[in-house]
Amino acid sequence: MSTQNPVFIPGPTNIPERLLSAMHVQTRDHRAPDFVETFAPVLNDTKRVFGTKDGTVITFPASGTGGWEAAVTNTLSPGDKVLVARYGMFSHRWIDLCQRHGLDVQIIECPWGAGAPADKFESVLSEDKGHEIKAVLVTHNETATGVKSDIAAVRGAMDAASHPAMLFVDCVSSLASMPFEMDAWGVDIAVSGSQKGFMLATGMAILGVSPKALDAMEAAKLPRTFFDFRDMTKANASGGFPYTPPLQLIYGLRESLKMLFEEGLENVYDRHFRLAEGVRRATKAWGLDLVAQSPDLYSDTVSAIYVPKGFDSNALTQHAFDAYGVSFGIGLGEMNGKAFRIGHLGSLTDVMVLSGLGAIEMAMADLNYPITLGSGVAAAQEYYRSTHAPAVRSAA
Amino acid sequence: MSTQNPVFIPGPTNIPERLLSAMHVQTRDHRAPDFVETFAPVLNDTKRVFGTKDGTVITFPASGTGGWEAAVTNTLSPGDKVLVARYGMFSHRWIDLCQRHGLDVQIIECPWGAGAPADKFESVLSEDKGHEIKAVLVTHNETATGVKSDIAAVRGAMDAASHPAMLFVDCVSSLASMPFEMDAWGVDIAVSGSQKGFMLATGMAILGVSPKALDAMEAAKLPRTFFDFRDMTKANASGGFPYTPPLQLIYGLRESLKMLFEEGLENVYDRHFRLAEGVRRATKAWGLDLVAQSPDLYSDTVSAIYVPKGFDSNALTQHAFDAYGVSFGIGLGEMNGKAFRIGHLGSLTDVMVLSGLGAIEMAMADLNYPITLGSGVAAAQEYYRSTHAPAVRSAA
Amino acid sequence: MSTQNPVFIPGPTNIPERLLSAMHVQTRDHRAPDFVETFAPVLNDTKRVFGTKDGTVITFPASGTGGWEAAVTNTLSPGDKVLVARYGMFSHRWIDLCQRHGLDVQIIECPWGAGAPADKFESVLSEDKGHEIKAVLVTHNETATGVKSDIAAVRGAMDAASHPAMLFVDCVSSLASMPFEMDAWGVDIAVSGSQKGFMLATGMAILGVSPKALDAMEAAKLPRTFFDFRDMTKANASGGFPYTPPLQLIYGLRESLKMLFEEGLENVYDRHFRLAEGVRRATKAWGLDLVAQSPDLYSDTVSAIYVPKGFDSNALTQHAFDAYGVSFGIGLGEMNGKAFRIGHLGSLTDVMVLSGLGAIEMAMADLNYPITLGSGVAAAQEYYRSTHAPAVRSAA
Amino acid sequence: MSTQNPVFIPGPTNIPERLLSAMHVQTRDHRAPDFVETFAPVLNDTKRVFGTKDGTVITFPASGTGGWEAAVTNTLSPGDKVLVARYGMFSHRWIDLCQRHGLDVQIIECPWGAGAPADKFESVLSEDKGHEIKAVLVTHNETATGVKSDIAAVRGAMDAASHPAMLFVDCVSSLASMPFEMDAWGVDIAVSGSQKGFMLATGMAILGVSPKALDAMEAAKLPRTFFDFRDMTKANASGGFPYTPPLQLIYGLRESLKMLFEEGLENVYDRHFRLAEGVRRATKAWGLDLVAQSPDLYSDTVSAIYVPKGFDSNALTQHAFDAYGVSFGIGLGEMNGKAFRIGHLGSLTDVMVLSGLGAIEMAMADLNYPITLGSGVAAAQEYYRSTHAPAVRSAA
Repeated sequence: MSTQNPVFIPGPTNIPERLLSAMHVQTRDHRAPDFVETFAPVLNDTKRVFGTKDGTVITFPASGTGGWEAAVTNTLSPGDKVLVARYGMFSHRWIDLCQRHGLDVQIIECPWGAGAPADKFESVLSEDKGHEIKAVLVTHNETATGVKSDIAAVRGAMDAASHPAMLFVDCVSSLASMPFEMDAWGVDIAVSGSQKGFMLATGMAILGVSPKALDAMEAAKLPRTFFDFRDMTKANASGGFPYTPPLQLIYGLRESLKMLFEEGLENVYDRHFRLAEGVRRATKAWGLDLVAQSPDLYSDTVSAIYVPKGFDSNALTQHAFDAYGVSFGIGLGEMNGKAFRIGHLGSLTDVMVLSGLGAIEMAMADLNYPITLGSGVAAAQEYYRSTHAPAVRSAA
Repeated sequence: MSTQNPVFIPGPTNIPERLLSAMHVQTRDHRAPDFVETFAPVLNDTKRVFGTKDGTVITFPASGTGGWEAAVTNTLSPGDKVLVARYGMFSHRWIDLCQRHGLDVQIIECPWGAGAPADKFESVLSEDKGHEIKAVLVTHNETATGVKSDIAAVRGAMDAASHPAMLFVDCVSSLASMPFEMDAWGVDIAVSGSQKGFMLATGMAILGVSPKALDAMEAAKLPRTFFDFRDMTKANASGGFPYTPPLQLIYGLRESLKMLFEEGLENVYDRHFRLAEGVRRATKAWGLDLVAQSPDLYSDTVSAIYVPKGFDSNALTQHAFDAYGVSFGIGLGEMNGKAFRIGHLGSLTDVMVLSGLGAIEMAMADLNYPITLGSGVAAAQEYYRSTHAPAVRSAA
Repeated sequence: MSTQNPVFIPGPTNIPERLLSAMHVQTRDHRAPDFVETFAPVLNDTKRVFGTKDGTVITFPASGTGGWEAAVTNTLSPGDKVLVARYGMFSHRWIDLCQRHGLDVQIIECPWGAGAPADKFESVLSEDKGHEIKAVLVTHNETATGVKSDIAAVRGAMDAASHPAMLFVDCVSSLASMPFEMDAWGVDIAVSGSQKGFMLATGMAILGVSPKALDAMEAAKLPRTFFDFRDMTKANASGGFPYTPPLQLIYGLRESLKMLFEEGLENVYDRHFRLAEGVRRATKAWGLDLVAQSPDLYSDTVSAIYVPKGFDSNALTQHAFDAYGVSFGIGLGEMNGKAFRIGHLGSLTDVMVLSGLGAIEMAMADLNYPITLGSGVAAAQEYYRSTHAPAVRSAA
Repeated sequence: MSTQNPVFIPGPTNIPERLLSAMHVQTRDHRAPDFVETFAPVLNDTKRVFGTKDGTVITFPASGTGGWEAAVTNTLSPGDKVLVARYGMFSHRWIDLCQRHGLDVQIIECPWGAGAPADKFESVLSEDKGHEIKAVLVTHNETATGVKSDIAAVRGAMDAASHPAMLFVDCVSSLASMPFEMDAWGVDIAVSGSQKGFMLATGMAILGVSPKALDAMEAAKLPRTFFDFRDMTKANASGGFPYTPPLQLIYGLRESLKMLFEEGLENVYDRHFRLAEGVRRATKAWGLDLVAQSPDLYSDTVSAIYVPKGFDSNALTQHAFDAYGVSFGIGLGEMNGKAFRIGHLGSLTDVMVLSGLGAIEMAMADLNYPITLGSGVAAAQEYYRSTHAPAVRSAA
């Protein structure tokens, strides 16, 4: 029998019925007026989620990795220098992508659990008198460690150094779940995807691109066609696509935006904080530690939690899946075996989170973790009940 | 934003994605061979769930109430005497239906929380020397009180009295969730529906009918057309329907049977016991009492739980819905205000049950119930983890 | 491989993707406020389609046959006299239902292909000085013959005879496809269903009931519980249902009404006329005759067409299905073997109709009918192209 | 009201209900065993459709354009020479992609309407004694002109020239609709997508890759990460994906393969030929010409048809959409204004094709084309009825 438990991986996220139905659409002619009238407003509305008025939203039928590649290839040339801090698996992978594309990557190594080091960025940038660094790449929410970085501080560092580099931000696992202010933070390219805060199927990279980044594409010499901004923005201008568009995801995104705006973006962010805080209370009740080094770094979309010394986090996530049919995130990279992750983003309620906490508690008890059964759930319950909204009616 | 919490009402139940998709079918011609080839095997396979080889499965596009009416009108005549025990809202309603149809209903009043009184049936039937009682009507699972009755014992009572009355059983909220043995128990008509153990949308009454009951229809004088067994069995014999069939539900039933047989009926019953037992452990941990009077009466599909003196169960269920978006069953009839109900049947996992227990605990705490937050969840967790299956892979 | 051809049976009709998705909904608590807030407006909006302000809309989880039974059992008593004309399979079946319920049915036999005989009704009613006739039953659209009757004329006849009988109308295959004016025509009960003009799955009987008919229920002695108007209207008054409601169909009906109102009821009727007229032009081009005796009787939802002498209409529909995978209506009752039917109602376009005409032409040619291949299609094309709307954009 | 007409664009194609439902799946954990057990067999089964035993199937969440880019970037280095013939919009675009990636593209210009010039390939390759040409790129089915090229002949030319270049084939609009023999034809990379013969949503590039092409990736210096074969094949080897996989499309592909194999690939090809031939008969009946120069070049998935001199094909397709709600392919590139296209691939029946022919005929008549209304339909009908299968039952 198919279980119906929610997933607690940090994306792809649980897809609301309403969005599954929105994507359940028959083929329509993407060159017909219908599509044009649908697509242009969707792109425009998505700007609100990025927090941009000046920027342009560009989508590709791809995953977030494709979004990274698009950001880099449309704005840089082989040998160009970029500055990146490595503090988790996803910042690591973006570095790897840059290196494979022949960029000169200056890496600031940080401990996993730390966030983007604004101060170090400032000193490196200040020393780069020749402005060889063309872009600073930052992972807003490091999904591997449950760390949220302060993008405004990075922008502050860049400004303090009076450095003209572009600022590229990976917000795949934060956008539409945590506040994001592309214009206010001076982000030049923000890279996200359909399968996290937008609660859709995987398959669409969603980018916010500043005018400055669009200008950079004229000189950028890295080869690209599928991910070419020029082809895409030109086709988008008349409501079209340079090749066959992912129609179902576009209809899905239209409905996702409706859902987000109906709830209200601020309420969406508040809900994510509340859900996350319940998980953090549970973690404390278990006597376990978050990978994120300090409260200001706590992510509201994913919590990475150290297992006690002597335990193997892989055995835990495996057992939770085998015995209870619940998926949690494994520890990635340096965290492999040391930490597991609870994804708490997208279409999720406090009550659903309780089921995840209940499941992992059972799994921990089964494996003789030194925790008290029910303690994490009770801590989360206590927090949730002290903060519940007056009413949480479902909008049918 | 639409919440995605499971419902914990005792039906309609949570519909698995697989069954929603099975019902998501375009119109087909119900007079074409395709339909014929689909429908006949579905009727035949449903017999396994009723535990009958001799019986005939008959479906109507209706709810369970329609099934009751079909049972009565096809076999009885105005003024006929029937014997029924009243021990809950659903036995009460069936009595009402009989009375409205001009039957002479001999009622045995029992406390709500009790089950079918086999001994009293035996004495009444033994005294009915003239065999004026044409049918004994029993509610297998009284959804209002969470009481499961012993149908084999009722059959035993009838046999002990050597009484030829027919035995009609309401198994709406038990079939496909708890063991049911139509042939072994000598049931003449068993009435169920699509929206409980079959995990489908509401809209199909599903009956098992013995040869003896089919014979009775010839003499039965209560008027009926829509619910006529003769029209239906005649049309079914050639794979058809006497009027437009509920195609989507028939395709849904086909897939539901596949799911039930893939899991194995015994495993389905075991799963329901296990889920229910977790709820009972939680109830005990809260210091609350079940409405069901004794363990042998405990239903594995729904638990009715008394709230403490001085509390109003309606306020509790209302608050659980308003504050946490979770639906529980209200107290019906005599139980209104006194008890709430947790439905735990159909497509449900242990982890989903934990979320229901967690939610009602928060609601109880909010309303100052004398319970310890997390205690019920922990009791259920302890039970579930001591009894989990080796692996619960979902069958995609 | 599954074919995707439309069906051309006169219901159930092709279900638009939008309505399939509207019915693809997870279980919600039918006692929760959400449902209440959904259901009441749906009932109210449906009144517009019936053309009533004074009437009440009542739904049952049943087929149209159940709707007939509800109409009769809620308003009449055993032995009551009703007046009906028989001119097709569905008027015949309603008569049969009345007789099985012990009513005294006065039947006016008419040729199949004729409509309701207003003049004969008038003379019979005029002679019924004692007003023994309690109700006149009329089939608005006789699906078996493709005949639309003039309900206003029947009302005129009743008024001319100053007869107080109630007027019951079967509008199963006309409502939401052809104009219907319950109030203006003085209809007391109008019976329809979900699977025709509403373009939904089968499973919901939809009735419009006048205040006069509601009054009649107090005295009506025919037994009923499942179909009881009193229970239903009482529960509906507070947004509820007396038993488990067919949630998916109710959500479907909500969306169906949206679609109908978006298109505009007048436009819906015009579209049905236009589609039907194309079929009639094709029929003429083939040199075949409609069963309907005269143009004023032509139905806009189904055309019954005589096959030439010496041909068997069953062989034709069978061959069309076997060779081309297209379902047409068979000849029912007296028309069996003599006529086939093309359903052209619900979610259908001119272009879809062409495919049906093309398919039946091929089938006729295969069976050596004396028709010219392409002639019917061309006649319909000529009509459609001379009447096409300025633009037929799909509303996504 | 939403129309439900099929689309007659040459992809994305009409999606069968069965595949829409297969893609309507909730998020599952792509790192869990379920996914692994699902994905590996899907990749393996897809090999049958490519006609390969030796090759490897690689998928990306992308469109066909992404597939082209993957083919080129994984096997070639900047400055590498490739040989391509340009005879339509899609061969043109592939050339453009190669040029943007810094390849040295030797182009053989051919008239639009011609196919791949095996003889010219042979002479060019024979002259390339130094084997500077690393790959020959061929569009199997040129969607812009409705031309199918002879890949076996191209292979023959390469062999005759004893040239070691790789052979890359764009089979986006032919695979799973027309015979494709990757191994027999010595194809090194075959590029296809989900939205044509596989009848799925757009969003997955599907490639068949020979061992020789896999070997080439070691030396290939074009940068790539998202489209990297190495990352993908390494992850696929253990049933995984190097980033978030497009789960819904993978489940869809699994069901698509089931449908294709149930029908039988040979039957799929035969059906496409039959549908296409009907369109060609209609074209002849209209007195119009195909763009494809000779019968051996006729594509079975799309027909490009010249409009008569003095007519504008864009006005025709626009009018067909506006007046009848039917989408046809516009003329692309050189064919813009001169030709329109009828897509006849994927989930389609003869009867559906008739509706497309009927629609375009009406549109042509409306615009005063010198055609006889009904003539094309009748010609197709005549062909279809002389070739219909014994029975075309739908598999539910």
